Formats: sequence, C-alpha cells, structure tokens
Amino acid sequence: MVVALLNAQSRPWLEDKLPDGVEPMWFESRDELLGHAERAEIAWLDTIAPPVAAEAIARMGRLKWYNAMSSGVDWLPLDRLAERGVILTNGAGIHAQSVSEFVIMGMLTMAKGYRQVVRAQDRHDWLPQPPGKRELLDAKVLVIGAGEIGTRATEVLRALGSDVTIARRTARPGELGEGEWQAQLGRFDWVILIVPSTPQTTGMFGAAELAAMKPGATLLNFARGTVVDQDALLEAIDSGHLGGAFLDVTTPEPLPADHPLWSRENVHISMHLAGRAQEALFARGSARFLENLGRYMRGEPLTHSVGLSRGY
Amino acid sequence: MVVALLNAQSRPWLEDKLPDGVEPMWFESRDELLGHAERAEIAWLDTIAPPVAAEAIARMGRLKWYNAMSSGVDWLPLDRLAERGVILTNGAGIHAQSVSEFVIMGMLTMAKGYRQVVRAQDRHDWLPQPPGKRELLDAKVLVIGAGEIGTRATEVLRALGSDVTIARRTARPGELGEGEWQAQLGRFDWVILIVPSTPQTTGMFGAAELAAMKPGATLLNFARGTVVDQDALLEAIDSGHLGGAFLDVTTPEPLPADHPLWSRENVHISMHLAGRAQEALFARGSARFLENLGRYMRGEPLTHSVGLSRGY
Repeated sequence: MVVALLNAQSRPWLEDKLPDGVEPMWFESRDELLGHAERAEIAWLDTIAPPVAAEAIARMGRLKWYNAMSSGVDWLPLDRLAERGVILTNGAGIHAQSVSEFVIMGMLTMAKGYRQVVRAQDRHDWLPQPPGKRELLDAKVLVIGAGEIGTRATEVLRALGSDVTIARRTARPGELGEGEWQAQLGRFDWVILIVPSTPQTTGMFGAAELAAMKPGATLLNFARGTVVDQDALLEAIDSGHLGGAFLDVTTPEPLPADHPLWSRENVHISMHLAGRAQEALFARGSARFLENLGRYMRGEPLTHSVGLSRGY
Repeated sequence: MVVALLNAQSRPWLEDKLPDGVEPMWFESRDELLGHAERAEIAWLDTIAPPVAAEAIARMGRLKWYNAMSSGVDWLPLDRLAERGVILTNGAGIHAQSVSEFVIMGMLTMAKGYRQVVRAQDRHDWLPQPPGKRELLDAKVLVIGAGEIGTRATEVLRALGSDVTIARRTARPGELGEGEWQAQLGRFDWVILIVPSTPQTTGMFGAAELAAMKPGATLLNFARGTVVDQDALLEAIDSGHLGGAFLDVTTPEPLPADHPLWSRENVHISMHLAGRAQEALFARGSARFLENLGRYMRGEPLTHSVGLSRGY
C-alpha cells in the first residue's frame, strides 16, 4: 500500500475517489499530522501553516511526493525536498479564475474610485460626480509573468478593450523578455505583477522600476510582497509619482496595524484573499490531486511539478 | 445659416469642426440659453437640468432637431417634441463601455464581498478569510435589455466565463422574448436590468418578478429606478429572498439620506455614476453630434434617432 497523509478538510472530496492501493491517513490536528508523518510516501497537507508543514516534512523519511494547493511554493523547504529527491507539485492554474477576477475588480474599482462610492454610501451621501472616470478600454497594461493567472487576466482585459503587453522569461513574438520590460515601463498605465516568488524575482521591482513607470500609473501586485521593494513603493506613492497601488500581497503578512500602507488614500490592500475568493477551491484542488494520484499509481509523470531549483 | 444652440461646455470639442453653414450660439447660463432659444433650429444642451431643458424647448419655435447625450430620454418632453415633428437623437452607445465596466465591477465587488475589504482596510484589519467566494465563471446571468450597453456587458461576461442569457423585445435564437423571461427568472444567479425607460418598462420588475428570482440571487439595475418596484425590492431584501441588489439608479434621485436602501448590508448604491464614469464622455458625445450634424446639413437621415412614441 502507498500511504498518503491527507488533511481531513479535503476528505469529502477525496474519500470515495482514491485509487486502489492507496492507504489514506487523515489528520485533524498538528499532533496527528506529526504522529503520522514518518509513514507518508505522499503528502497533501493544505491548508496548514508553513512552519507546521516544514516540521512535518522534516519527519517524513519516506516521502516521495509532496502536493501543494498553492501556486507559490516559496513557503516550502525547497532545498530539503530537492536534496531528498521528493517530487513537488503545485496548484498552478487552480487560482487562475479567482485571481483574475480579483485583478479585474481591483483595476475597475481604482479606475472608478469605487472605494469613495462605498464610503459615500456608508454616509448616505449621493455623490454628484464620479470619483473616478478612467476606463479600461484602450488602457495600456503590462502583465509581468504569464503563467495561468496572467494569461487568464490578459484574456479578460482584452475583452474589456485594454491594450495588453505580456512580459515573461521566455517571451513569444510581441511579448517582452526578462531584460526587456524595464526600459518599456514608461509606456503603461497599469503594471500587474504576477510572477512566481523565486530568488530571481525577490526585490525585482524596486526604486529604479518604480521611477521608470509612467507618472500617475498604477502598480498591482498579485505575486508576493517580496517581489516589490515596499519602502521604495511607499516613497513613490508619497512623492506623487505613482498614481496608486493595489496590493493583494505585502511584506509581512498580515501587515501590522500601524503600517503606513494601510492609510494611504491611493493604496488598496486586499489581504492575500484573491486566490481563496472561490467556492470551488477544494473541489479544484482535489480534482488536480486525484488526477496526479492516478498518474503516480500508474508510474506516469505528474502534471504541474515544480522545478525545485527554479522554484515554480 | 442653420442656427445651433450649444452648451459652451462642449465648445472645445466642436468649435473647429462645425461644417459650413452652421451658426453656433454658445450659452453659458440658463439666461443665455433661454434668450437664444427662439432662434434655434438645432439644439444640443448637455449637460443641463431636465426642467431647464423643458423650459428652453417650450421656447424653441423653430426647433427641427434636438440632440441628447444620454441614452435614456425619458426626462425630455417627448410628446411635445413629437407634436412639433422634432427629430430627437440620443447618446445610445456612448455609455456602453463605461456602464459595462460598472456592471462588471458591481458584480465582482459583490461576488468577492469587496466592500467589507474596503471597510477592513479603513480599520487596518487584515481579514483572515475572503468575505465573498463567488466567481463569475459559470455564473448564470440574465441580461434584460440588449442595447449597446447590454450587448457590451454580455461580451465581457462571456470572456469571464459567465453563462449569459439575453432577454429583449425582439429576441434572436437562443434569447428570451418580452413575455418569456419572467417564467425563467428562477434559473439565474444574477439578473441585470438595462432596458430603456418607457411606459412599458415602468414597474416592469415588481413583486412577482422578485419572488420568481432564485433565492439568494442578485438584482442589478442600470436602467431607471422606476423600472423596479422599489418597495417590493426592499421587502425581497428584508425577507432574505434576494441575496443582494446593486442599484446605479433609484427612485427618487438623489435618494433621500433617510431612505432605508442606503443602510441594507447587501444593497449597493452607485448614484447614477456608471454612464459618466468616463473621461471621454464629451469627446464621444461631440463626435456623435458632429457626425449627425454633417448628415443633417447634407439632408441625410440621422443615426440614433429615437422613436418618440416608443421612447428609445
């Protein structure tokens, strides 16, 4: 039997569908997780806190395959998994729709000044003029990182009439490559970061990139807080160079209550909710896991495996 | 010379582009407007208050063509214009993009509970869980009224993966006709009203239609406040039958500060801002007017003329 260590949270989606030859071990607590860890050949632990995952992985002497439901895997001990030859699969694509919907919502709420509409309603105040009059039609948008999320967001933005340019490591014709987008930043009204968090992308968007942006343009970060130099961002906001920022991710998370980003009028903070703003998260995550579990049992290569040295 | 009475607000977009044979009379005040009214053969007065428009029209003994920038023309004295054989043109389509963007924004903010995110940020409070987890992917949407706005919103919703059904007076294959959508209301998660305001659509969506909606579904009104029976709407909200409402339009406008709709947690009021939430409004309105002005001077039929008996 192949022993799979599984969070009881996902039991309703998995129980009846596990292939023959798999012995599930469901855990409901940290103690149960750590107690069973030694026996696991396969582990899917979501959702648990990163330090608990690391602690459990340290005890998993027999682990061959670790499955994560998140797209970003920077919170996992990648070096240790690589050393031990563990296959890591992630949830790339599972969040594409929900994050894309959040991206579009974020852009539209900023374009229309919708936050001021919300506050006006709370005061029972009928605003005589729109607090924002921007449109996404013909807006120049740069999407940096074109995994499944960036690709999906691009499709919707193009339907809205936006003029979208994609930047990614291996650029296709008409796209910008890894070292090319920096010089083009001044062309765009909106810049959306949706790259994976890796050593290469940490601090990727710093003072120089912010200064190169078009005055009044908006930065959206749906990648990781560490991708942006947050102090430089605050400066670019306070100097008036940047028109605004929509941050689904920050450093640290949660953002401390006294952090200055909370109270800037043109900074929107959405508390890393975008990927989880979907009812189907576990259904999609379980379908992905079961498909890969079937492949694993048949000895086939798994889909969505992460290159442990590149980190996505 | 053909005398055209024009709001000085639109002068920057028109001045250099008026065809030969047109004599513009710019007005900057109500007095100037009323003083010039008698001489006008053509009038484009936006933006002025409806009672002032009515007063001016009453004095326009030589008027042959009245141009309005709005899509809805229910605020104009249609009977009087019809009696006098005046051609009326409207701004149908000019607002298609901005209203569509507002429709999508409204749906996404409700789906994700974004208003609670705004309020949490105002408290510096990092929400641990998404306040809304609905997606527009696979959502069942009924768009009632498929002019240029409804058609544009449908395109974007389909790009988001929504399952959209259109209802209109002259239904095409796969759409619902005038008397057909009522029986189907229970199938939809979202119902969007974007019909013109006419005697036929006044009170069109009342207690029976609200009761026929799927429990927990959301109503969006981007038509006119009078299209919905607002007391019945409030009852459907308070009974819990309706999941929520997004009202760009209300009865009356502005909504009085003590009106109960302001403070219902699942009612969103956007103050008739949707159509004006665009920087290009006057540029688009002027381009439309100039195109029709050229046609007028050449004796050709005008585009976007309103059937004065049907009201759109």
